[in-house]
Amino acid sequence: MDSIKVFAPGTVANVACGFDVIGLALDAPGDEMILRRSSEPGIRITAIHGADLPLEASRNVAGVAVQALLQKYERPDIGIEIEIFKNIHPGSGIGSSAASSAGAVVGVNHLLGEPFTKKQLVRFAMEGERLACGSAHADNVAPAILGGFTLVRSYRPLDITGLRTPEHLWVTVIHPQIEVKTSDAREILKQKVLMTDAIRQWGNVAALVAGLYQDDYELISRSLEDVIVEPVRAILIPAFHELKLKCKEAGALGGGISGSGPSVFMLSKGEENARKVAATMDSVYAPLGVDYKIYVSQINTAGVKVID
Amino acid sequence: MDSIKVFAPGTVANVACGFDVIGLALDAPGDEMILRRSSEPGIRITAIHGADLPLEASRNVAGVAVQALLQKYERPDIGIEIEIFKNIHPGSGIGSSAASSAGAVVGVNHLLGEPFTKKQLVRFAMEGERLACGSAHADNVAPAILGGFTLVRSYRPLDITGLRTPEHLWVTVIHPQIEVKTSDAREILKQKVLMTDAIRQWGNVAALVAGLYQDDYELISRSLEDVIVEPVRAILIPAFHELKLKCKEAGALGGGISGSGPSVFMLSKGEENARKVAATMDSVYAPLGVDYKIYVSQINTAGVKVID
Repeated sequence: MDSIKVFAPGTVANVACGFDVIGLALDAPGDEMILRRSSEPGIRITAIHGADLPLEASRNVAGVAVQALLQKYERPDIGIEIEIFKNIHPGSGIGSSAASSAGAVVGVNHLLGEPFTKKQLVRFAMEGERLACGSAHADNVAPAILGGFTLVRSYRPLDITGLRTPEHLWVTVIHPQIEVKTSDAREILKQKVLMTDAIRQWGNVAALVAGLYQDDYELISRSLEDVIVEPVRAILIPAFHELKLKCKEAGALGGGISGSGPSVFMLSKGEENARKVAATMDSVYAPLGVDYKIYVSQINTAGVKVID
Repeated sequence: MDSIKVFAPGTVANVACGFDVIGLALDAPGDEMILRRSSEPGIRITAIHGADLPLEASRNVAGVAVQALLQKYERPDIGIEIEIFKNIHPGSGIGSSAASSAGAVVGVNHLLGEPFTKKQLVRFAMEGERLACGSAHADNVAPAILGGFTLVRSYRPLDITGLRTPEHLWVTVIHPQIEVKTSDAREILKQKVLMTDAIRQWGNVAALVAGLYQDDYELISRSLEDVIVEPVRAILIPAFHELKLKCKEAGALGGGISGSGPSVFMLSKGEENARKVAATMDSVYAPLGVDYKIYVSQINTAGVKVID
């Protein structure tokens, strides 16, 4: 195989109470990428459609992730060309850089006959995240590669687990097209938190995981509460509280800030509810004078998919 | 039915990373209780064998818990006699008071033809805990009544969920017969914790729950880590670090302080490992000059059982 086309999904990191540990993959939006073997050694980004990102491989997350893979593969003679069709807006908070890193390493792994496991690929994709935001976090690349809900229990050692995804869980995401820098969103967090809040948070995290395994949508709904990060970061997102309240009134199970924002996600049981939530998001944001996009999708349980 | 005998299990609250939210029920040790209908209205504790505890119903956790049940039942004319055979040492940290409260309400509920659900019974038993330690906590009475692993997600509103219990999970408990007051154990906790520690803790809690549902003993093992409470409370328990280290070397998956101590629990896969852990506990404690008891049991998935 000399050429492959992949779909690389957007992802929601943090998932309310699961700050820094739980993520999920979307069916929409997602990027498309074409990966080609080339007789000329080295990695080249031949084109990026839909976003203004570095073409130089060492400054591009996909390039860096593939570089990490080829290094481990010990075949510096291999040449790879990468063409990227960006649908996930950089800085949207739905894993734009992670999609590029994840799609690139899954694609190249296919081209090479799958020498690496998905969990190994996560490590390579994390190098893309290191380039993008200064820390090799896994909470977007893990769901992008493994699909479904994922848990990053620990970084040292890296310990990633796929969680069960209830069949009827849908996601509605609104991306307000304003800029929230991840570094700013990090800086406003407190270094210490109240023990009582921390206990409440891990009670919710435990309940969220139990809800996923038990297909208990009501328990999932009750557990989608973030008493630590959301109260601090909500100010970064226009009309956040009104948006959340009205989405829940419209039938959403719950939700919160996607990654470090500005996107906001809501989980629903079934497509009909997810579409009602989308309409509600639209009605809240239409008067605000902020550009935005809304996506409705099931949870993507496959992760990066080969589409051609 | 005029008389019933029940087995009321000991319980482990906190379960390492699951401080204040996760508990589990034991097959041993456990109390036995006889509950009898009486023609004379009111609650009487007729005898307590094996421990020096108040016989006055309003000052006894079993009496108070049954009182709460009868109040809700709106039948003040009912008379109940309670006889208690204590095997769980008060102050051991394995849910002695919870066993009495739980056994009493489950027994009386049987005598009355089961008007209440198990989750309703938890509320009544929590009144016993309020008497015993000043706060109506549920992390012992929930597993004592529901059996298996339980999660208290929230108190306001009360939200309790039974979790899955892997078939081959065994528990070894050592009870060093020293006094650790729950109030002291509470007081030494910090009111604030580092965000990084809190994140690590809820990553572990999420992984523990996932491990229970996935029958993944290795994941359970990796997640049995408490970076918040154990580092503070370990000083209350003789030779805690040596005990834990040697138990893990002997094959334990992991463990920690049971409740607020002084008991220490270890989980193992299979009876053989659990018995090796018991022998290891014995070898660590034998030279210390502290009296102790060691219990080996499966997880009790039934909770309080009617035995006669």
